[in-house]
Amino acid sequence: MREPGMVTPEVTRGDLIDALERADRPAIKRIGRHLPTQELSELLLTLDRRRLQLFVDELGNGFVADEIAQLDPAIGARILGRLTGDEAADVLEEMPPEHAADVVGELGDDQREHFLSEMEHPEAAEVRELLAYPPNTAGGRMTTHHYEIKQSATVAEALAYLRTVGEHGGYASYLYVVDDAGKLMGVAPLNELVISSPDRHVSEFTKRDIVFVEAATDQEMAAKLLRESHLLALPVCDDHRLVGVVTADDMADVLVEEASEDIERLGGSQPLEEPYLTASVWHLFRKRVLWLLALFAAEAYTGSVLRAYEDELSAVVALAFFIPLLIGTGGNTGSQTVTMLVRAIAVGEVQMRHLGRVITREVAVAMMLGVVMAVAAYARSWTLGVPELGEVVALTALCIVVWAAFVAAMLPLVLKKLRVDPAVVSAPLITTLVDGTGLIIYFNIAKIVLRI
Amino acid sequence: MREPGMVTPEVTRGDLIDALERADRPAIKRIGRHLPTQELSELLLTLDRRRLQLFVDELGNGFVADEIAQLDPAIGARILGRLTGDEAADVLEEMPPEHAADVVGELGDDQREHFLSEMEHPEAAEVRELLAYPPNTAGGRMTTHHYEIKQSATVAEALAYLRTVGEHGGYASYLYVVDDAGKLMGVAPLNELVISSPDRHVSEFTKRDIVFVEAATDQEMAAKLLRESHLLALPVCDDHRLVGVVTADDMADVLVEEASEDIERLGGSQPLEEPYLTASVWHLFRKRVLWLLALFAAEAYTGSVLRAYEDELSAVVALAFFIPLLIGTGGNTGSQTVTMLVRAIAVGEVQMRHLGRVITREVAVAMMLGVVMAVAAYARSWTLGVPELGEVVALTALCIVVWAAFVAAMLPLVLKKLRVDPAVVSAPLITTLVDGTGLIIYFNIAKIVLRI
Repeated sequence: MREPGMVTPEVTRGDLIDALERADRPAIKRIGRHLPTQELSELLLTLDRRRLQLFVDELGNGFVADEIAQLDPAIGARILGRLTGDEAADVLEEMPPEHAADVVGELGDDQREHFLSEMEHPEAAEVRELLAYPPNTAGGRMTTHHYEIKQSATVAEALAYLRTVGEHGGYASYLYVVDDAGKLMGVAPLNELVISSPDRHVSEFTKRDIVFVEAATDQEMAAKLLRESHLLALPVCDDHRLVGVVTADDMADVLVEEASEDIERLGGSQPLEEPYLTASVWHLFRKRVLWLLALFAAEAYTGSVLRAYEDELSAVVALAFFIPLLIGTGGNTGSQTVTMLVRAIAVGEVQMRHLGRVITREVAVAMMLGVVMAVAAYARSWTLGVPELGEVVALTALCIVVWAAFVAAMLPLVLKKLRVDPAVVSAPLITTLVDGTGLIIYFNIAKIVLRI
Repeated sequence: MREPGMVTPEVTRGDLIDALERADRPAIKRIGRHLPTQELSELLLTLDRRRLQLFVDELGNGFVADEIAQLDPAIGARILGRLTGDEAADVLEEMPPEHAADVVGELGDDQREHFLSEMEHPEAAEVRELLAYPPNTAGGRMTTHHYEIKQSATVAEALAYLRTVGEHGGYASYLYVVDDAGKLMGVAPLNELVISSPDRHVSEFTKRDIVFVEAATDQEMAAKLLRESHLLALPVCDDHRLVGVVTADDMADVLVEEASEDIERLGGSQPLEEPYLTASVWHLFRKRVLWLLALFAAEAYTGSVLRAYEDELSAVVALAFFIPLLIGTGGNTGSQTVTMLVRAIAVGEVQMRHLGRVITREVAVAMMLGVVMAVAAYARSWTLGVPELGEVVALTALCIVVWAAFVAAMLPLVLKKLRVDPAVVSAPLITTLVDGTGLIIYFNIAKIVLRI
């Protein structure tokens, strides 16, 4: 594996293409090792089969496995899918089984079976075991590599066991203690083991009140639990039997993915399931069009509202000047509130029982903001040369800001109560909701103040 | 420390308040231990000094230290700040030094000096050392607890060292190898040490091409580097000297915080620096009002645009019916693009050199979306009873969608080039930019098609 943060000579994708063209084996090896992973992956996706094969031959299965393990599994599957069964199997065998399972899981049924049948037996069995768990669960994200020992063992026996397992345990920091049936009984930190005399029993420093996750637990829950526990890994159990561990680095990936999904939803589209640059245009279109149409449908009633006030609008055309400004301000306020709340809910800071407090706070903040915006709106009516509308727009700005904050404060918590993910209350949805109601507020204030 | 995921008896904040009221010491202890951390922190913030003191006495400095270490440092400082110097110092001594430094860093200068002077010497010195690094850097987030050994040491010497350090090393998984001047030379995994014979030299299994971060490195960069390296901790160096480690669990906190900041910026406010529920209304107001005013100022030119087209608007008042719908659709498209891109940039998927590809992709997707929205807009003109505007609104919908996607695709990358954080191109800002330009598109199409 290449080390991040190291100084590497400047090589480009073009250099590697040239080297592959000339079949210059030393150059392929040298340049391939120094190209950043992302560049390399983009290149591998475009190589023809013969050149891809040449690349794998020169760089070795281990190197290719390390690179692919760092990519999105869908991309890894697209690269491996173009190798023959035994070539792909050789690479898969070199990958950590949890990454191999992620990649294999992205392949079609036939190809998956074919690749697995070409793999060595123990590696294939590990991958098959992991494939049994859905990808978004603790089981789907765990590694099967961990240290596991019987509770009757002595320190000397534990050390002997660690010697046989060797590097296969990865950099695990904990030794998990199980009973004869494989049931998880406790955890012993590796550093305790290191400093204990060989004749002591492991059970003497085994912690019994352990935190663990079920294999079927959602990956986001598992990541939160690991974060709260401030441990470097959590054991994963299936029916009380220890089946693997989720580590802090993998859970960091989960936290980043979940934040990305929330951000994409807040922006008003469904989450992409693959990296932006490699997702097809058709995929991007599909993820956006439904929300865009839904928002259009919701926004369409603003037309009906405006038609209902056609007489007022004809009487005072200047009222139209302020439409985008006033509903925009309402939308911005709502967007501020909803994004802040959705995030606070996602990280667990705000819960349903806080609804009353949230609304009080938001309305209080919005009153202050509303006064500021009312002054700004009043000033704008003068600079726009229609001072006769000053009172109307100032009063409307105040009311719309408070109304938008109120709606935006209510909705995420109410949706959470209804078991809908609050992140789907995207900022655009709030904006849309506030647009129509804001217009009703505007024209009613205009009717009263201007007596039209 | 309480274990997350454990079943705890149902106790409420009210129960604890009652127990404190009655000075019922056993009850205080029992209930205090079982109240969730967040509830407990909210309660501690409201207790008077006498009851807070009673709570600390009963639960013990160690328990209080563990609870405070889990809170936002600003909250921790507000709680500790109400204790006397020696009481607070006792609690601080029990906290991991990096958390103690975070909390102490939030205090005023006088109180900070007072608390530090009351602390035992070695603990105070550690905290002072950490305070020298800005809070948002690797140095500010690192723990000083780590295993460090001379490169000449044997395995037996290393084990003897680990025995003296004991639990103080935390759950560190690596042994860092330094030269006589404390310069970092390499890293040896703890599990290699465990399985090696005592007379071997540590240098035999020391990895020399190590990944490390400088103490002054931004915390977000450090978190990214740790994530890419797939290690559980990274060594932190100051002028080549090893000064501490950042661990995967602390870096997960950084990733979550940074995602929150991006989300808040995308929602159109400055990031809150403290948890939502404990931030004051005034703090919330300050974080929002400037952006809201800036967006108002930017949106204000929509008034000028509309006034410029006053004649067209008077001639065909029905044109106003579609204003919110058309500019809303443009804003939604821009919002989708900008949030997706800002996130892709934040996680490093998209870079400046992809600008051309990003724009091509976004425009291609927007053309497809634009056609769909044009059909929807045409249909809406009929249902709204103004079919004569059908062509105008359909054509406008197509143009606005493509234009919004183009602007939203350009801006984040251009801003990144100008070294401005792309997250400040909040979705509301794009919406605002597209509103005014969208109106110009709309009225020009109307003038041409309707010949007004």
